Amino acid sequence: MKILVANLGSTSFKYRLFDLGDPAEPVLARGAIERIGSPSSKVVVKTAKGGSETSRPVADHGDAVQLCLDQLTDPETGVLADASEVSAIGFKAVHARNLTGVHLVDDAVLEAMEAFSDVAPAHNPPYVKAMRMLRDRFPGLPLVAAFETGFHRTIPEASQRYAIPEEWATALGVRRWGFHGASHRYISWRTAELLGRTDLKVISCHLGGSSSLAAIRDGASVGSSLGMSPQSGLPHNNRVGEFDVFALPVLLRETGKSLEEILQILACKSGLEGICGANDVRDVEAAAGEGDIRSQLALDVFVASIRHYLGAFLLELGGADAIVFTGGIGENSSRIRSMTCRDLGWFGIELDPALNAGGPAERRISAEGSRVQVWTVPTNEEIVVARQSQELLKSGRSAIA
Amino acid sequence: MKILVANLGSTSFKYRLFDLGDPAEPVLARGAIERIGSPSSKVVVKTAKGGSETSRPVADHGDAVQLCLDQLTDPETGVLADASEVSAIGFKAVHARNLTGVHLVDDAVLEAMEAFSDVAPAHNPPYVKAMRMLRDRFPGLPLVAAFETGFHRTIPEASQRYAIPEEWATALGVRRWGFHGASHRYISWRTAELLGRTDLKVISCHLGGSSSLAAIRDGASVGSSLGMSPQSGLPHNNRVGEFDVFALPVLLRETGKSLEEILQILACKSGLEGICGANDVRDVEAAAGEGDIRSQLALDVFVASIRHYLGAFLLELGGADAIVFTGGIGENSSRIRSMTCRDLGWFGIELDPALNAGGPAERRISAEGSRVQVWTVPTNEEIVVARQSQELLKSGRSAIA
Repeated sequence: MKILVANLGSTSFKYRLFDLGDPAEPVLARGAIERIGSPSSKVVVKTAKGGSETSRPVADHGDAVQLCLDQLTDPETGVLADASEVSAIGFKAVHARNLTGVHLVDDAVLEAMEAFSDVAPAHNPPYVKAMRMLRDRFPGLPLVAAFETGFHRTIPEASQRYAIPEEWATALGVRRWGFHGASHRYISWRTAELLGRTDLKVISCHLGGSSSLAAIRDGASVGSSLGMSPQSGLPHNNRVGEFDVFALPVLLRETGKSLEEILQILACKSGLEGICGANDVRDVEAAAGEGDIRSQLALDVFVASIRHYLGAFLLELGGADAIVFTGGIGENSSRIRSMTCRDLGWFGIELDPALNAGGPAERRISAEGSRVQVWTVPTNEEIVVARQSQELLKSGRSAIA
Repeated sequence: MKILVANLGSTSFKYRLFDLGDPAEPVLARGAIERIGSPSSKVVVKTAKGGSETSRPVADHGDAVQLCLDQLTDPETGVLADASEVSAIGFKAVHARNLTGVHLVDDAVLEAMEAFSDVAPAHNPPYVKAMRMLRDRFPGLPLVAAFETGFHRTIPEASQRYAIPEEWATALGVRRWGFHGASHRYISWRTAELLGRTDLKVISCHLGGSSSLAAIRDGASVGSSLGMSPQSGLPHNNRVGEFDVFALPVLLRETGKSLEEILQILACKSGLEGICGANDVRDVEAAAGEGDIRSQLALDVFVASIRHYLGAFLLELGGADAIVFTGGIGENSSRIRSMTCRDLGWFGIELDPALNAGGPAERRISAEGSRVQVWTVPTNEEIVVARQSQELLKSGRSAIA
């Protein structure tokens, strides 16, 4: 079965085409269309038979998908005889009201996503808009939404619940949902392969533009640093992370801004960017290296929060077999990894500085004899979405848990 | 020096009179006046020379303090020759805008407290009201505010900061302040006495009507579960604890309530009460024991949150020498303590079930050989406030850090 997995931004469409019948080499093609809506969108495609990088106008996400399908069926560099070979487009969808798992996208799913647009303001609006357009444009092509919250359904009720009135938690869905499910699910799978067993206690540290830790026991999530919204937990590149709702009266009074404006700043102008002005950890590390105090503070706040959840999840799991770093920062920043794992001798956890500094992308970085293995593992959210989409299509149902 | 330490509720005034010149028996008297404003206020006083429990009308906090002073100078059961022997009334004050430490109460202090009335809605309004009245009524009697946030000034900047715009953190004072400073400071002192050294890593668990954990290194706070407001961190009896500000759009939309109304519910109708309807842990434990599922959930949510911070602070401190339970719940609920410490074998931490079940109020409850000593220690916030008040008066200054 061939599944096109899409990663949508408000002006971008990135994809991978999977052939799940070929476990050895499941990726048939990958590509990206950026600056959608501009007169010179950037169009990249790469297959086993070749690739191209061009610039041309692409009006909207519908045109982007059409262009993608045209390129994938190109007689010279394409890998499909016909666009109908694509069984579905799978999406790593983020959040929806009272709904999780894997769903065929229909009106009810779109409405549930739209209802949580202000809970996930960076994610839901572009997904809903693009999905609506694609349904109109390609009515015969199933769209599958694999929600990021799905992996976390196994979190015990006591950790999901905020201490709020019962009806808010149950009827209104105000609870700790957890996100980054595709990435943490992949890390759980892959760690089991790497360690050769499934009865594992794993702390998965997905650190990137947005970041979260997950506590995983025997392959099931039992804790996420993300709560009701993708803005919670760890500080993100420009989203706030953990915050106290009772700061709002002060902010409303002293800034003269509306609640909507305050929430927008918390969702787009906070996180690392709020502290130091830059939102890419590579830039923040460089500035800190040059002595910029606010950049150093941003790194310190970020690491303090990672360590906060690392400790909480070590206790929750009663120890760990593996701590795994993934995501753009987790895979690439030896500095953030070493700051996170400093002074853990009391726990018997120790990095190997040389292994941490460099090596294959997927490697153990803990010292021989460390009580917990520490790894860096490149994540692969797309293969998770492809497999979940296939599972849904094979089930013949409109949704699976 | 004799200091009257006051504990104010909106309709109550509880006090202890300390003679700090007598370290062996510093408490000269204690008492309480409850149901202030009602025609039959309950008036209790107890000194070495006797005591009484009566019922009479007490109009306001000014009358309550006057009555207290009258009783303390009573020729038969009183312990003072003259009310002027009282050098100051000390208050365990909670929160004020851009101000912490120990202060003589003046207009600026009262204004700073008033400015944060909506950040600490259960605490600041009754304190400000009563302090204003006492200043008018007893103009020659110094009032001292020992802020609960003072002990936490030593928390590293990286743990104090939310990932918000710089100016919100600095100019507006939106940061993790931490509270319960008097109790955690006492636990730090007392643990050093009990263990015979001051270079200690201590996790102080103050569990009561409101609850927090503090991470203490060498006598200084390096972490608090409480943030900007006394409503954050652990779930409290009727206050929410940790919450996601991005749940607000859903609550505002779905309930039709105003932000003010939502915040009020989060401040007075949430916490244990929000989950199960009861806000006294003794009642919640009893109901859970009879099989009430929501009461069991409330206990589980509470303990999950305690364990969350316990793990975070163990990692922050790089292990611990002692975990100390205090406060009404911490001192008295063997069940909450054993739930909190269950399955910590990986960390080498083990309770002794018999010691945990009962014994002197102040006792070690960990097993022989436990890598971390676990204790229950009755807190004594009043002696801390009395000593801080004395220190301020002796300094001759209007404020000390």
